[in-house]
Amino acid sequence: MSKLTIALDIMGGDHGPPVILSASLKAIRQHPDFNFILCGKQEIIEPVVADLLPEQRARVTIEHCEDVVEMGDAPAFALRNKKHSSMRRIIELVESGEADACVSAGNTGALLALAYYFLKTLPGIDRPALVSAMPTASQHKVFLLDLGANVNCTSETLFQYGVMGSVLAQEVSGIEKPRVALLNVGEEDIKGNAQVKIADQMFRDAEALNYIGYVEGDDIFTDHADVVVTDGFTGNVALKSTEGLAKLVINEVKRQSQMNLLSRLMARIALPLLKSIYNRVNPDQYNGASLLGLRGIVIKSHGNASADAFYYAIHQGMREAKMGIPEKIKSKIETVLLEQL
Amino acid sequence: MSKLTIALDIMGGDHGPPVILSASLKAIRQHPDFNFILCGKQEIIEPVVADLLPEQRARVTIEHCEDVVEMGDAPAFALRNKKHSSMRRIIELVESGEADACVSAGNTGALLALAYYFLKTLPGIDRPALVSAMPTASQHKVFLLDLGANVNCTSETLFQYGVMGSVLAQEVSGIEKPRVALLNVGEEDIKGNAQVKIADQMFRDAEALNYIGYVEGDDIFTDHADVVVTDGFTGNVALKSTEGLAKLVINEVKRQSQMNLLSRLMARIALPLLKSIYNRVNPDQYNGASLLGLRGIVIKSHGNASADAFYYAIHQGMREAKMGIPEKIKSKIETVLLEQL
Repeated sequence: MSKLTIALDIMGGDHGPPVILSASLKAIRQHPDFNFILCGKQEIIEPVVADLLPEQRARVTIEHCEDVVEMGDAPAFALRNKKHSSMRRIIELVESGEADACVSAGNTGALLALAYYFLKTLPGIDRPALVSAMPTASQHKVFLLDLGANVNCTSETLFQYGVMGSVLAQEVSGIEKPRVALLNVGEEDIKGNAQVKIADQMFRDAEALNYIGYVEGDDIFTDHADVVVTDGFTGNVALKSTEGLAKLVINEVKRQSQMNLLSRLMARIALPLLKSIYNRVNPDQYNGASLLGLRGIVIKSHGNASADAFYYAIHQGMREAKMGIPEKIKSKIETVLLEQL
Repeated sequence: MSKLTIALDIMGGDHGPPVILSASLKAIRQHPDFNFILCGKQEIIEPVVADLLPEQRARVTIEHCEDVVEMGDAPAFALRNKKHSSMRRIIELVESGEADACVSAGNTGALLALAYYFLKTLPGIDRPALVSAMPTASQHKVFLLDLGANVNCTSETLFQYGVMGSVLAQEVSGIEKPRVALLNVGEEDIKGNAQVKIADQMFRDAEALNYIGYVEGDDIFTDHADVVVTDGFTGNVALKSTEGLAKLVINEVKRQSQMNLLSRLMARIALPLLKSIYNRVNPDQYNGASLLGLRGIVIKSHGNASADAFYYAIHQGMREAKMGIPEKIKSKIETVLLEQL
């Protein structure tokens, strides 16, 4: 069996190539069953990979890319004017079949635009979605989508998100019949906007999915569902606002620790515990949002990811490549569409 | 000067009349400058108010109401079939001018429908909005609206929410020029859906408001803005999902405290600190969502409010009555509309 190949955008991310390269070396060393294509400036990459053992170095290809997509570049600008960017190159490698998955911590909008333009969506899928795992009260994770790929979603798109999320929960978490829920403002049937109500009916009619109905925002974290579906506007706000609250909790501990002696003592003693809580709820730790629904695997890492966090995103790409997630989604959507005939 | 009057729905809430009455007695005792009308079943209310001193009892009127709006009643059902409900009566009392504000912990949908039907919106306001204060990293609070009154919002509605939120922040928090922000999925101008983009332009053109542009979900809690405007679907999800995360944090502490001895010790010592954090971030503590934009003051308490939380909601109603919030909104929206001529 030939090895699977992962293409990495070395130039993306807030902390620059050193952090991305450090994570990449870790992946190369720990996963002898994968090949890696590192895209970016040769003069930056070359000296770093020199540290690898010959067996490791043999699994690495460097593709020199002259251009860099900057964090502030508009997606259309990146598409038109940065034809030799590392971000574009990793997508092209997936498109041509030279790579089985790609990972970037760069500009989200540009990555979405490039991925959508070159890879196109799978048959039966209108729009790609960004999905990530979130913590729950139990040890299970919940997949929330869309996290911001599409701010306007039709009922059909929401339904397709449910199909894609279900495949991911099945393959990645090994859940036989993932519980799929639709995010709404109330559990009563009368609530919700028109798109949500129609999507609800579509889900009810789809026997190939284990649809459990509506959930509210607080149920994301209660292990009620394995997949929670919403539009990209709401999903992004839900992700970011919970991230904001998690940060507020930590800041509150810091503030308290500067107050009276008792508070300071309590905060001091509890700091490891509080950090463990923060790590559990902090979305940074769930790094590696998958761009689902395309004819290829694209993983978006947090821009400010640490080396550990970027390694996790690479790992996510390797897992999806092994499982052939796009083919599984294609097959599932065909089953669901046939059901509707 | 004649006393202001608050009408209370004694029958609403998950915990029933005892909790609501306990909060009501506290308000009656602590605020000799207010009259109170208690609406609900006379036989339940009468024995409880008997405990009041004569001066206190003299400020209380009981209005017997035969019907009770149940938590599961559809809004249209409550409107048509519960003509003698305590919830309807408190709204009628505000409509007739007999009360200056009303407070209920009952069924949200029914309360919104009754309030909208009887009180109507102020001139220049299309739809009412639910607004509540949320914690921030500093000691300032931020007003988030809409929390679920309208799941579909036009740009005009979003703009009007900004005007209403600005008035509330000015009057309740005493901020001279409240910073008004629009919730979006990114700070770049290119992001967001059509309604948000048009609303952004409307805000930019309104000189009577201190508009600061877009904020993302995590900025709700960073004291970037005094007022954050969004549609009722997104606002509700943001509120509930942060509430869900706050509960997850507490549950995680409980779980950790059952693990190894060190964790148990840390959790034990830190419990008061963790509870203080929870109390600070738990939206229950910010009880009393105002239904803004109507020709009268309606306060919605959390259904599962404790006596202390319901007291806080009454307090919110008293504060808004003293400040004449509806008149202030009416005057501000006139200023803004004149600007547009």
